[in-house]
Amino acid sequence: MDEALPHVLIVGGGFGGLEAAAQLAHARVRVTLVDQRNHHLFQPLLYQVATAGLAMTDIAVPLRGVLRDQRNTTVLLARARSVDVARRTLELEDGELAYDHLVLAVGVQNQWFGKAHWSKFALGLKDGEDALSVRARILLAFEAAERASDERERRRQLCLVVIGGGPTGVELAGALAEIARVSMARNFRNFSPESARIVLLEGGPRLLGTFPESLSRAAQLKLEQMGVEVRCSSRVEDLDAQGVLVGGARIEAATVLWAAGVAGTPLVRTLGCELDRAGCVLVEPDLSVPGHPEIQVIGDAAAVPWKDGLVPGMAPGAMQMGRHAARNVVRTLRGESPLPFQYKDKGLLATVGRSAAVARLGRFQFSGLVAWLLWAFVHIFYLISYRNRALVMFEWIWLYFTRQRGARIILARSRPSQADDPARTIRLR
Amino acid sequence: MDEALPHVLIVGGGFGGLEAAAQLAHARVRVTLVDQRNHHLFQPLLYQVATAGLAMTDIAVPLRGVLRDQRNTTVLLARARSVDVARRTLELEDGELAYDHLVLAVGVQNQWFGKAHWSKFALGLKDGEDALSVRARILLAFEAAERASDERERRRQLCLVVIGGGPTGVELAGALAEIARVSMARNFRNFSPESARIVLLEGGPRLLGTFPESLSRAAQLKLEQMGVEVRCSSRVEDLDAQGVLVGGARIEAATVLWAAGVAGTPLVRTLGCELDRAGCVLVEPDLSVPGHPEIQVIGDAAAVPWKDGLVPGMAPGAMQMGRHAARNVVRTLRGESPLPFQYKDKGLLATVGRSAAVARLGRFQFSGLVAWLLWAFVHIFYLISYRNRALVMFEWIWLYFTRQRGARIILARSRPSQADDPARTIRLR
Repeated sequence: MDEALPHVLIVGGGFGGLEAAAQLAHARVRVTLVDQRNHHLFQPLLYQVATAGLAMTDIAVPLRGVLRDQRNTTVLLARARSVDVARRTLELEDGELAYDHLVLAVGVQNQWFGKAHWSKFALGLKDGEDALSVRARILLAFEAAERASDERERRRQLCLVVIGGGPTGVELAGALAEIARVSMARNFRNFSPESARIVLLEGGPRLLGTFPESLSRAAQLKLEQMGVEVRCSSRVEDLDAQGVLVGGARIEAATVLWAAGVAGTPLVRTLGCELDRAGCVLVEPDLSVPGHPEIQVIGDAAAVPWKDGLVPGMAPGAMQMGRHAARNVVRTLRGESPLPFQYKDKGLLATVGRSAAVARLGRFQFSGLVAWLLWAFVHIFYLISYRNRALVMFEWIWLYFTRQRGARIILARSRPSQADDPARTIRLR
Repeated sequence: MDEALPHVLIVGGGFGGLEAAAQLAHARVRVTLVDQRNHHLFQPLLYQVATAGLAMTDIAVPLRGVLRDQRNTTVLLARARSVDVARRTLELEDGELAYDHLVLAVGVQNQWFGKAHWSKFALGLKDGEDALSVRARILLAFEAAERASDERERRRQLCLVVIGGGPTGVELAGALAEIARVSMARNFRNFSPESARIVLLEGGPRLLGTFPESLSRAAQLKLEQMGVEVRCSSRVEDLDAQGVLVGGARIEAATVLWAAGVAGTPLVRTLGCELDRAGCVLVEPDLSVPGHPEIQVIGDAAAVPWKDGLVPGMAPGAMQMGRHAARNVVRTLRGESPLPFQYKDKGLLATVGRSAAVARLGRFQFSGLVAWLLWAFVHIFYLISYRNRALVMFEWIWLYFTRQRGARIILARSRPSQADDPARTIRLR
């Protein structure tokens, strides 16, 4: 590659970063895409990996494979630590990379609202490893219930709490209900898996706060029909290895899943610019960092105003920003001024369970089967490779007809580190 | 379940244990199947998980799911520590289980021939976690090669050594050659993946020592055509983080895979009976432990004489022993004497690469495409669930036509613990 060409460094191979790289395929630049993982992950279906419906590899594609024919682009596996805006370098764990243009597409992490120690007890769901840990935790709870020698401990193992009633929380709770009511049927000898208690806690007054109210109601009704205990306006007061304190009362639960919110990553803090309350970058209208037109922040890591709030942290917004950032880089190199970003709203989608989802498309609202088919179609469509599309489609058809979750496999190294193994003493004759 | 019924305790949910449990479905006994994992693993295809062709979940089925309709059988997730033959109990890590009949189907582990410290540097392939570690190691070597700043280190990263020329070693070496020559094409900017060096070391005079000689020659020829460096009569003298010492000369290699042999597990040592040199149980002709007709050892853990050697450690032998052990339990309960086990030889199969395998069926020998189709058919047929059969078939057809390996995903927690991350300092401009 021509060393004299301007160097565009993209950090993060999610929807935004990958789209930015793809847009620069034919530009007169050298592109380097750095990611701490070797794969792009289709996060919208991560909850299905966590709930044993899909394999991790069904929703992941190797970044190198995706970009193999893009000759001006190098993919590097490396962890970014900080940005030195003065020297225009990205510091890695084990080296550094100089840039002319930097595109940060580093996503977000779990928001613990000042209670970082809760992360020892509640499992978040941000990456593939998280998904396998959540899966192991859920399956191990049922295993421990089979071995439990007293009824109180069995009830605790069979109580699963999901904190946060956004799309991820709703999707997790719905899938958990289906696991307990259907997939696990006849699998145990010492209890009936239908007796499992699934609790969904939401701090705000309704589920799916960013959706129209009628859809929030539809989602809640469906979840309740599926046997999920939905509690809105319920803020968690405390959380430990034994359970959750909410509304002054304790819920004894061995499994607590965290889907309560997102926060900016440590990397964006090193930019030294202004962040919003969640720790995301308050970018200029053209997505650049104030005072640094050579740095753009895109995707969930950027706080971009839209209507009364922000552009929602979903794939379409990230992809639009990725394309926009790439175009602005090209404009700048041509000596043209960068253009402001405009979000094109495509709508909102969330699935609740089998044949049930809620959708807003522009001004139109759907729920039930039509929304579910739309949801399935859109998710298959946005998957990156044909292979993954075929695999996910196969797994869904399989799940639909057999109601068996094929990925009910615990990987030993994915077991959460806490002492939540089914380590009850058993003595059977 | 009727507590008064005799209790048959089966340890291990591999081919042998699962078959023994299935055979007891309608017997007047209580059955407990204990495994330290929640799944049955189709080990013959483990090397394809390791070489990124299949997902772990494609070849695993949850034991509970398989046995869910067998009402006299309980599945427990637990680690067995030792057998107390006098008290007739199995000691677990966290409890104990009493038995009337014990069937040990606990498999084998890697044989290090007195060099246990080599296991720090070379990766074995016995379970699903091993497979993901091997996969991560292979992929990380290529990642490190892309980042390497000097040519010597790059060559070391691109040298992969497989130790042991049995079926697993041959299959691994063939798959590695295909990864380097085909799947990784155009994926890197700083080297050509075809320059990778794949070395297969075998201590004996020929590959596939248990196969007819003409098939050994066919396998070696095919591997060499694929670019694998095959060295027979080559015993490893030393092994460290940098490479291998063999025939007095060093091979600098970042990745060393171990497929050199198997050994009995610590659990069978606690029986206090006589073991063979590999540490497997020298059972009576009826598969029982000498002096303990109530304990049977089956599958790889048992050393069962056949022809000049032992029954080969493959699925058909284990399944036959599982059925036989179950029948002998039933005979004993009826007051009949147990029958001796007779191995029915079905033949031998090993795959070398795309459209190439070697097979012995009774007295007939094949190699090439016919053997490969036979191999594929047999492996699909023996997979436990329809879901896994469909998935594996899909992945194979996909791989055959696209030659892309879809499971090229590194899971962070599967990274081997040694310092083999691509931690070279890079400084790019």
